[in-house]
Amino acid sequence: METVWTRKDLLSLYDLSADEIIFLLDTAEEFKKVSERNVKKVPALRGKTVVNFFVEPSTRTRVSFELAEQRLSADIINVQASTSSLKKGETLLDTIKNLEALQVDLFVMRHASPGAQYFIAENTKCGVVNAGDGAHSHPTQALLDLFTIREKKGHIDGLKVTILGDILHSRVARSNIWGLLKLGAEVTVAGPPTLVPREFESIGVKVCHNLKDAVRDADVVNVLRIQHERLNASFFPSDSEYASFYGIKPGILDYMKPDTIIMHPGPINRDVEISSAVADGSRSVILEQVTNGLAVRMAVLFLVAGCVKK
Amino acid sequence: METVWTRKDLLSLYDLSADEIIFLLDTAEEFKKVSERNVKKVPALRGKTVVNFFVEPSTRTRVSFELAEQRLSADIINVQASTSSLKKGETLLDTIKNLEALQVDLFVMRHASPGAQYFIAENTKCGVVNAGDGAHSHPTQALLDLFTIREKKGHIDGLKVTILGDILHSRVARSNIWGLLKLGAEVTVAGPPTLVPREFESIGVKVCHNLKDAVRDADVVNVLRIQHERLNASFFPSDSEYASFYGIKPGILDYMKPDTIIMHPGPINRDVEISSAVADGSRSVILEQVTNGLAVRMAVLFLVAGCVKK
Amino acid sequence: METVWTRKDLLSLYDLSADEIIFLLDTAEEFKKVSERNVKKVPALRGKTVVNFFVEPSTRTRVSFELAEQRLSADIINVQASTSSLKKGETLLDTIKNLEALQVDLFVMRHASPGAQYFIAENTKCGVVNAGDGAHSHPTQALLDLFTIREKKGHIDGLKVTILGDILHSRVARSNIWGLLKLGAEVTVAGPPTLVPREFESIGVKVCHNLKDAVRDADVVNVLRIQHERLNASFFPSDSEYASFYGIKPGILDYMKPDTIIMHPGPINRDVEISSAVADGSRSVILEQVTNGLAVRMAVLFLVAGCVKK
Repeated sequence: METVWTRKDLLSLYDLSADEIIFLLDTAEEFKKVSERNVKKVPALRGKTVVNFFVEPSTRTRVSFELAEQRLSADIINVQASTSSLKKGETLLDTIKNLEALQVDLFVMRHASPGAQYFIAENTKCGVVNAGDGAHSHPTQALLDLFTIREKKGHIDGLKVTILGDILHSRVARSNIWGLLKLGAEVTVAGPPTLVPREFESIGVKVCHNLKDAVRDADVVNVLRIQHERLNASFFPSDSEYASFYGIKPGILDYMKPDTIIMHPGPINRDVEISSAVADGSRSVILEQVTNGLAVRMAVLFLVAGCVKK
Repeated sequence: METVWTRKDLLSLYDLSADEIIFLLDTAEEFKKVSERNVKKVPALRGKTVVNFFVEPSTRTRVSFELAEQRLSADIINVQASTSSLKKGETLLDTIKNLEALQVDLFVMRHASPGAQYFIAENTKCGVVNAGDGAHSHPTQALLDLFTIREKKGHIDGLKVTILGDILHSRVARSNIWGLLKLGAEVTVAGPPTLVPREFESIGVKVCHNLKDAVRDADVVNVLRIQHERLNASFFPSDSEYASFYGIKPGILDYMKPDTIIMHPGPINRDVEISSAVADGSRSVILEQVTNGLAVRMAVLFLVAGCVKK
Repeated sequence: METVWTRKDLLSLYDLSADEIIFLLDTAEEFKKVSERNVKKVPALRGKTVVNFFVEPSTRTRVSFELAEQRLSADIINVQASTSSLKKGETLLDTIKNLEALQVDLFVMRHASPGAQYFIAENTKCGVVNAGDGAHSHPTQALLDLFTIREKKGHIDGLKVTILGDILHSRVARSNIWGLLKLGAEVTVAGPPTLVPREFESIGVKVCHNLKDAVRDADVVNVLRIQHERLNASFFPSDSEYASFYGIKPGILDYMKPDTIIMHPGPINRDVEISSAVADGSRSVILEQVTNGLAVRMAVLFLVAGCVKK
């Protein structure tokens, strides 16, 4: 397998070619086997240091990255903004330059400001992996979704994928859309008009405000989390109103094809955007997404580390 | 030494047979030798991942477990509730299922709700070690107390053990009582009537409200911490009042047998439940308990990990 | 190279002989080469446990020590005061004695009270490395400054070094002064009279309140951070006033010798005590100081660990 990967950073699927995305998914397949072994470690990043730099808190994504790093035998430093020198008035770039001067190799970085990781990547010789930047991009989440779809359906090209929920504020939605379109899927975004404005049509996806229409032909329904922590205005009347119009419940499964899979990036709000019966049911691949996330992150860290020149 | 251990979880000494407890203590003896070596590590859990999941904060217990895990060469993930997805409305079980999907092997779990670890253990293939659940159970603390008593006295059967202090709110007291009775000790619980109600007699221990009577025949006096952080009502007038009636001070030692040992689970409130002269004196085995806790936790992690089938 | 190092603790440069300081710097030179390798690890502390005990928060110093420990292959436990048993009323010494009972080997300790580390070092068999105690001492910072000066200038004896800024509250200044004087440098302390009182003359340094005079003959100018978080009274009218009178700006470089180097312990307040043009300019060795800090801390940990007898 010849490498087509030449980037020291993974910032957004928007930047990648279809070949690069497929190469990432193929590499992740190899790493998935490692996690199924009894001793789940490889020495690929031994002696390398990865800094998990999380300016926004996150346990799920941080733990998934940290496990990926451990299984690659990297040394790991966790830095959280709340305790960092940013509090003492240091600029973000100075904080990063200081860590770079300690001869670390990779930054896994979450930041509330879209583009922060681009700025940092341009100004450091270290590799930078975007672990989420505001509502803009979350490339490893999109890659694990693509990985799971390909694993379940055998291919992505030609599939119909519906992304349901708060498209407006979702970095997961944006990243998925870019990746799916590059790999040849047809994408529909669905949800209430306040959260799924018509403007999304301009990037090549269908917009749909009726749930039954949105799921009828779908091979994949990706249900987004209602992010109470981000929705600081009133985009819908109440959780139960949302659940009634847009929640995925057993009744709605009857409108889907029999082999449609249900995805969710987690953490789920049970009986808001997805009912327990569906989340725990046979169509749900939610926990497989989590497992695949580990393989995808191992692949990403391994590939970008190979392109860091110091 | 043939194994009698078949459990993937350690939830409470209440569930264990005397043989199982003794097998744990024997295994801990082997591990105690490891910590006395120059290089204090064995590869027993290499490639396994242990998640320290602490929904209630704790430094002492967490550090003891983390050192035990390091010395078994495990990979370690620390998750604290205050930063976890529980904050985002995820259920405890979903949080655990997500971590399980990341192919971790063991959970070391502290939770404020009695029984939380039982519920989780039934719903995961991973092993679960209870690191304290509310006022109910703290099995590794009880095991390290049993280990220390056996090491100092040569046996537990037939010994007279007095547990002194806030029996009502103490998971340490409950766990010790179960273990001591199973191994054939006679147990007295002592302290003010508000903290040591008569009802304890129904589980097979003596209840005593007079300090001198409580310690007179004891081979072991286990002094519990006054947990200001749990005592939200007025169970006694003041610390100095408590110290005067129930504190273990040099004068009270005269009422004990010459070889009675003094234990305390820590952290100690100097000159409240125990005076400095006693805590630092020749009868005190408090710091040996801490050392033994490490060996006991290594043994527990090693044994349950051997029973996890995935 | 015969060892002249016999101390299990590094508490303050005040205690060390010139030979001991030079031996530390020579050892750090060897360790600097390790961090330039592809695999940046040596097994020097394998099987040893280092506790980073930070009663005052710090990310920069903690990360630098943690990386040094990882590169020496130590096991690492991080304890922060905010979550420790100190909160439950345990004394500092009891907390340390409990950790010692877990058979750890070294404490890297930051504490707000000057002398706390001396007290602990006298009462434990473990090694103690002072990572900053209030306004008193920060020996590894001073050692990395000395290392950087020696690397850049070839020697320290006979050099003229100016330390500029808040000398009164700075543990960096105190530690640097002791080290520089022992190694034969001439030291000038400079800044506003409120922050640089005349009394400093009694310890063998020159005191100067005029910036141009302070830098004119200097081989090294070490610019201290304005520590807003420590300055709880009004020592100067405003940041811009300070910048105008004592900030190091391009114009002031004209008053220096052409080969004067500019140092700063970080994190920098851009355009307060140092302008961006100077901080990022060719005379600045600020990021090299950070890199050298790692080598110095590896050397310190390695040397003190070799003197711990347990």
